[in-house]
Amino acid sequence: MVVSALRKEGGRGEDGLPGVLDRLKAQFGDRMSQGAEIRRQHANTTNWLPNEPADAVVFAQSTEEVADIVRLCAEARVPVIPFGTGTGLEGHVNAPLGGISIDLSGLNRILAVRAEDLDCTVEAGVTRHQINDHLRDQGLFFPIDPGANASLGGMASTRASGTNAVRYGTMRDNVINLTAVMADGSIVRTGGRAKKSSAGYDLTRLLVGSEGTLGVITELTLRLHGIPEAIAGGVCSFPTVEDACNATILTIQSGIPVARIELLDTLMVRATNDFAKLGLKETPHLFVEFHGSSASVKEQSELFGEIAASLGGGEFVWATRPEDRSKLWHARHEAYFAAKGLRAGASVVATDVCVPISRLAECVAETTVDIEQSGLIAPIVGHVGDGNFHVQLLIDIENAQEVAAAEHFVGRLNERAIAMEGTCTGEHGIGQGKRKYMKLEHPSGLPIMRAIKQALDPLGILNPGKIFPDP
Amino acid sequence: MVVSALRKEGGRGEDGLPGVLDRLKAQFGDRMSQGAEIRRQHANTTNWLPNEPADAVVFAQSTEEVADIVRLCAEARVPVIPFGTGTGLEGHVNAPLGGISIDLSGLNRILAVRAEDLDCTVEAGVTRHQINDHLRDQGLFFPIDPGANASLGGMASTRASGTNAVRYGTMRDNVINLTAVMADGSIVRTGGRAKKSSAGYDLTRLLVGSEGTLGVITELTLRLHGIPEAIAGGVCSFPTVEDACNATILTIQSGIPVARIELLDTLMVRATNDFAKLGLKETPHLFVEFHGSSASVKEQSELFGEIAASLGGGEFVWATRPEDRSKLWHARHEAYFAAKGLRAGASVVATDVCVPISRLAECVAETTVDIEQSGLIAPIVGHVGDGNFHVQLLIDIENAQEVAAAEHFVGRLNERAIAMEGTCTGEHGIGQGKRKYMKLEHPSGLPIMRAIKQALDPLGILNPGKIFPDP
Repeated sequence: MVVSALRKEGGRGEDGLPGVLDRLKAQFGDRMSQGAEIRRQHANTTNWLPNEPADAVVFAQSTEEVADIVRLCAEARVPVIPFGTGTGLEGHVNAPLGGISIDLSGLNRILAVRAEDLDCTVEAGVTRHQINDHLRDQGLFFPIDPGANASLGGMASTRASGTNAVRYGTMRDNVINLTAVMADGSIVRTGGRAKKSSAGYDLTRLLVGSEGTLGVITELTLRLHGIPEAIAGGVCSFPTVEDACNATILTIQSGIPVARIELLDTLMVRATNDFAKLGLKETPHLFVEFHGSSASVKEQSELFGEIAASLGGGEFVWATRPEDRSKLWHARHEAYFAAKGLRAGASVVATDVCVPISRLAECVAETTVDIEQSGLIAPIVGHVGDGNFHVQLLIDIENAQEVAAAEHFVGRLNERAIAMEGTCTGEHGIGQGKRKYMKLEHPSGLPIMRAIKQALDPLGILNPGKIFPDP
Repeated sequence: MVVSALRKEGGRGEDGLPGVLDRLKAQFGDRMSQGAEIRRQHANTTNWLPNEPADAVVFAQSTEEVADIVRLCAEARVPVIPFGTGTGLEGHVNAPLGGISIDLSGLNRILAVRAEDLDCTVEAGVTRHQINDHLRDQGLFFPIDPGANASLGGMASTRASGTNAVRYGTMRDNVINLTAVMADGSIVRTGGRAKKSSAGYDLTRLLVGSEGTLGVITELTLRLHGIPEAIAGGVCSFPTVEDACNATILTIQSGIPVARIELLDTLMVRATNDFAKLGLKETPHLFVEFHGSSASVKEQSELFGEIAASLGGGEFVWATRPEDRSKLWHARHEAYFAAKGLRAGASVVATDVCVPISRLAECVAETTVDIEQSGLIAPIVGHVGDGNFHVQLLIDIENAQEVAAAEHFVGRLNERAIAMEGTCTGEHGIGQGKRKYMKLEHPSGLPIMRAIKQALDPLGILNPGKIFPDP
């Protein structure tokens, strides 16, 4: 409804766009581009969703500049699409109605690190590697680690998580407050730095996960964690994917505070072996890591070892030296590129779902059968401690038949997860790609979300065509 | 603005109320009361805020009944005030514009406990004692423990926390999804049971803390925790309140996963000694508790012991037997009644603030000086591991001068906390009592909150006169 209002009222700037472009050029000069290649790079490039470029890209450098751009676009009813690093997997940065892409990579200052409060304040374009490199000397880290070196603003926008979420939570839990530019160009700061507050509506968590449709996040205060005294980790093979899932379920149910517990199915192990020369046995594996004091890490490892053994787990191979651990987790984070190696010339389309932990083994097992039956090449990898897993579909995206088969498969996967009281996305977000599942997952919540969108962005200029299915 | 629209348009049912009362009587019979005493009991009774009764109280027994009531009230523009146990501390259950108080204590069914997923689903009137009594046999517990035996719906509405929040989080972190009746009588379920989701706006966390102003919570799915293998706890005396605060700060900064760390100042220790016969030395104390495996609990206790000793902490007195531990924490939870004993006939007005942990010692120290200078009798007690503390003001609420002095004191306390990047309420909520600090704490956020309120409750019938300051 919001989107069509924009269209009817001359959206994508049929009236207003030329004036907006002129004024942006005047204010930003070389930091504004209408070049085709720049515009293409700022639209979707990660999967089969079409590349839908904005009319121009502006490289902003401050919250105030973002506010200037949004105000200008609001006056002319021109869409605004926030851009971090472009690594979103559901078409979040596409501009289906044209408009202005705001590249936030120039908002890259680390404004404060307060070790005494275990928090920091950064601009939205700071990436997760950048903040962790900066923090390392202080014995602190920021745990959220999606596969890509994404921007923290983008990670907040999609409510990202990663391998550490089972222990440290997601962006939902690790953003203390944020600054955002709202649809009218006003600047909002959502709260203070107290660890908890009961003062009014939780605007922080309303904006986290809103995918740029309610405001453009420009600054964040994040919760930090001390680098643990001891870290131990390694890999364990299992006879079947179900055994590996059941070991995960038991680990979580036993309350072992595992820091990471990641599943790789046989195909993913093969791909990772090829890509990262890990030399693992070609059966399903769990990659695990424990954080704590030396004593606690030892205890956790032993408990996990007992669970794994009870489910036919092979010998637990420790990665005790930091460089071995690094190699292991680097390989895990490169799953996308590893998978790519399984089929020359294919694209990797990564999809994700999340289910209650008790349904994990069942959901993965049914999905495995579905992959076999569909004939797709599609390794499974995932943050199984949260009940969250990914299927990496290897597709020739120029082949309409393959894309259609993959889309059908993704549909069945999403419906399966939702039927198990789970979600069609644990961490990637809805973007364009998963809009059609919103009604199934949120039959009663969707009208409330629409009402909030309408209230905070009445002209529908903020990242139109995302989250909400067409009415 | 919303409130005054309701007034202008015949709110408090100058036109609609009689019809609503008739229809409620017809549907609910004896479960609807207009008796003065019932109405008084369902309005504010916990402090100096006036008792402002609703026009009638309805004892609902299901989500559908709540929806019926809200729909009726919406048609007639009559206010709806949700009531759990009436233990809110900021006038949340008052009916300044009259209307219908919905007593939710009859929604007291535990609908499901899923030990395999560490979650449960309960109706909103279930209390925290009720759920924990029910869970005990299964080795599980729900950690959030405000002083009172509040209802879980009420606790969600005020984003409550308590002594365990430093380890287990607040209601924000422990509500997985909820069911609410919205302002038009529609029933919304905010999500599934997956541990995380990136599918759309976070309606769960928008409703948690919204104090009945956006919807009436009728059902909740809550995160449960395993009862730890080992629990150890005890008390430690300190020379000054600042030393106790600094010990807390160091404990948190060291990453010790303390389960509880509670400050009692000298006056509070005296009150607790009198009330619960604890026989503690009359100096400031920390009450602490550690959860984990035997080895981890031992390690945590030793680390805390070293920190305490470095700050002049007296001998650490262990409560090793469960009954001793129970006595200790029971005494802590009875702080309200203990404080009452300090001044015969006085009322206890409990106020709370929360600051970043690095500012805790400073904030408590300045507040202590302020108490001395103001001549108030006001012990301090708090969840200091979160930077959250309470001042229990002992006031003759019939004495206007005393009330004015106390109000001034509370104002200074709130302004101090906000100036330290904290909040005017860590866990009690805004209600009526703290509305005037919302603009100071949320100068840019308040208009956004108003826009959301207007969008989801355009008639302003849901708990009017709460959270928002008069325009």
